[in-house]
Amino acid sequence: MNPAAGRAGRPTLAVVGATGAVGTVLLGILSEHADIWGEIRLIASPRSAGRKLAVRGEQVEVVALTEDAFDGVHLAVFDVPDEVSARWAPVAVGKGAVVIDNSGAFRMDPDVPLVVPEVNPHAARVRPRGIIANPNCTTLSMIVAIGALHAAFGLSELVVSSYQAVSGAGQAGIDALREQHARVAGTDLGTQPGDVRRAVGDTGPFPAPVALNVVPFAGSLTEDGWSSEELKVRNESRKILGLPHLKVSATCVRVPVVTTHSLAVHARFENEVTVAGAHEILAAAPGVVLCDDPAAGEYPTPADVVGTDPTWVGRVRRSLDDPCALELFVCGDNLRKGAALNAVQIAEAVAAELPS
Amino acid sequence: MNPAAGRAGRPTLAVVGATGAVGTVLLGILSEHADIWGEIRLIASPRSAGRKLAVRGEQVEVVALTEDAFDGVHLAVFDVPDEVSARWAPVAVGKGAVVIDNSGAFRMDPDVPLVVPEVNPHAARVRPRGIIANPNCTTLSMIVAIGALHAAFGLSELVVSSYQAVSGAGQAGIDALREQHARVAGTDLGTQPGDVRRAVGDTGPFPAPVALNVVPFAGSLTEDGWSSEELKVRNESRKILGLPHLKVSATCVRVPVVTTHSLAVHARFENEVTVAGAHEILAAAPGVVLCDDPAAGEYPTPADVVGTDPTWVGRVRRSLDDPCALELFVCGDNLRKGAALNAVQIAEAVAAELPS
Repeated sequence: MNPAAGRAGRPTLAVVGATGAVGTVLLGILSEHADIWGEIRLIASPRSAGRKLAVRGEQVEVVALTEDAFDGVHLAVFDVPDEVSARWAPVAVGKGAVVIDNSGAFRMDPDVPLVVPEVNPHAARVRPRGIIANPNCTTLSMIVAIGALHAAFGLSELVVSSYQAVSGAGQAGIDALREQHARVAGTDLGTQPGDVRRAVGDTGPFPAPVALNVVPFAGSLTEDGWSSEELKVRNESRKILGLPHLKVSATCVRVPVVTTHSLAVHARFENEVTVAGAHEILAAAPGVVLCDDPAAGEYPTPADVVGTDPTWVGRVRRSLDDPCALELFVCGDNLRKGAALNAVQIAEAVAAELPS
Repeated sequence: MNPAAGRAGRPTLAVVGATGAVGTVLLGILSEHADIWGEIRLIASPRSAGRKLAVRGEQVEVVALTEDAFDGVHLAVFDVPDEVSARWAPVAVGKGAVVIDNSGAFRMDPDVPLVVPEVNPHAARVRPRGIIANPNCTTLSMIVAIGALHAAFGLSELVVSSYQAVSGAGQAGIDALREQHARVAGTDLGTQPGDVRRAVGDTGPFPAPVALNVVPFAGSLTEDGWSSEELKVRNESRKILGLPHLKVSATCVRVPVVTTHSLAVHARFENEVTVAGAHEILAAAPGVVLCDDPAAGEYPTPADVVGTDPTWVGRVRRSLDDPCALELFVCGDNLRKGAALNAVQIAEAVAAELPS
């Protein structure tokens, strides 16, 4: 049977930025999920037009990003740089599409909801500009777990340190780590000042070597020494949770991991917490896996979490000085829940409510 | 001239655990520093006895750890497992030596001072058991900077996340990372659940792979889910700073870095702080290098700090929600200031006050 035959009357989905690291994962997720779509149109830069990519077991030709590319599109998921989204998302909306945008261009626009389906699904319904924003991967890698704990205990403060994977910088980040690894493996580097830096040479999209190193800077510099990535964690957590005055301090650090962001989280609540109470909440929370039995060696690590959908939480401890504070270690695949999966979840929810 | 000729009447120093990762660095530091010692006696397990190691440009034969090995020793620096220190440090004291111990055996003993010469030098003079303890490498990698800020602003709380190098687990940790790197370099591992774990196989002294991964557990499990390493940061910071009620929450994480621990620190003070004020304190603090100009790409990373003596501090930011809180990123070579250098500094200070 021709699969297209059963798709008549279903919404058309456009994927803008189909050839990137997130786009690739997104096509994989669309192929795994229940097929609710009519056409899936793949859009990318003119440079990539004509390439064929697999989705739903079919080869689909990539078309160039033009106004006409949005003809007949009901939903468009964008994963492109901020400036491309800023220019083209309104074009897609003008052609009648609802846009789900994974860039930073619209996230803090008061007329654009910032949505995590497990946390604030209803926000997706109020979209005055026709755009729904998908949060930054670092925020997304923890917010499902934090949202569940907030609903139970009332969040008042977050202190977050990240261990961010190189694929947060796209395929260029993955390539950079692999090239750097090839230069340091089998050596005795890492014991003298600058030896790794000299061996690595070009650091690619990162401001310092990521092989045999950690780099305490991600994104661009904003005011007062904060990086853009750190302010995203702050501003987006506040908006998603509906807590405009939430105290948030983040330090964002790149580590030599391919995919899956980790975060060490110190979370203070309005109410007293217990480890048992937090375990109960996390074990029942949709989209969360509790993995917390250190006596059995069970805590999440990126190597175990990569390629999976949920937010994994372990190392739950109550502060020894503050009965209202918890420590957590959280891992989430930054390309799946941290980007592509959350966007697909939003798209599926919007599609279910489209007039047929 | 025979160098030994000028050494008459000077104190004899014993290095117990001379062949380990810290011992090797310690002999290097003794060779670089001003030569204040008479004999330097190298002591290790019977298995290593008879090996020759270079110190002060001379080959010195390692002797086995026995009671007689401490004959005539004035100071003994121990870098051996807890149980070896617990047994042998009192033996050395009984033979008349002052012991500087780098294990965890005595650190929290109220009759043993825990000393960081830049922070609490006077504590070294009161040593009822004849033992001075050297702090854990994670605590030491930040405490000089924190101590300077405490002296200026009055510390009330620390929330710390570590990025700990594999050499914190000794030469076995270094060997494990290098073997694991050899197995993952040149592959496309790190994208599927468990692919790194399968490729790495034996994880050596770590509970999970450290190549292409971060491991949120270091040390052993204690009560309520805390690791021994996390409680060391808490208990030792309190003792060194003389703040028995200091609030401390630490999450200790191993990263694929050979040497140099990093820490993201959220520090609350009794008084209001400014970035400019903190910069002034840190720039003037002995043993600290301020490296904080992110616009110029200047912040400490392990690859740049390894092999150096100071505590490097960057990414200084004031909390956007709390005028009494600072965020810092701190790096320190865990084998030098984090272990061997601090022990040598203590030994030199004690030697200067020995009756001649």
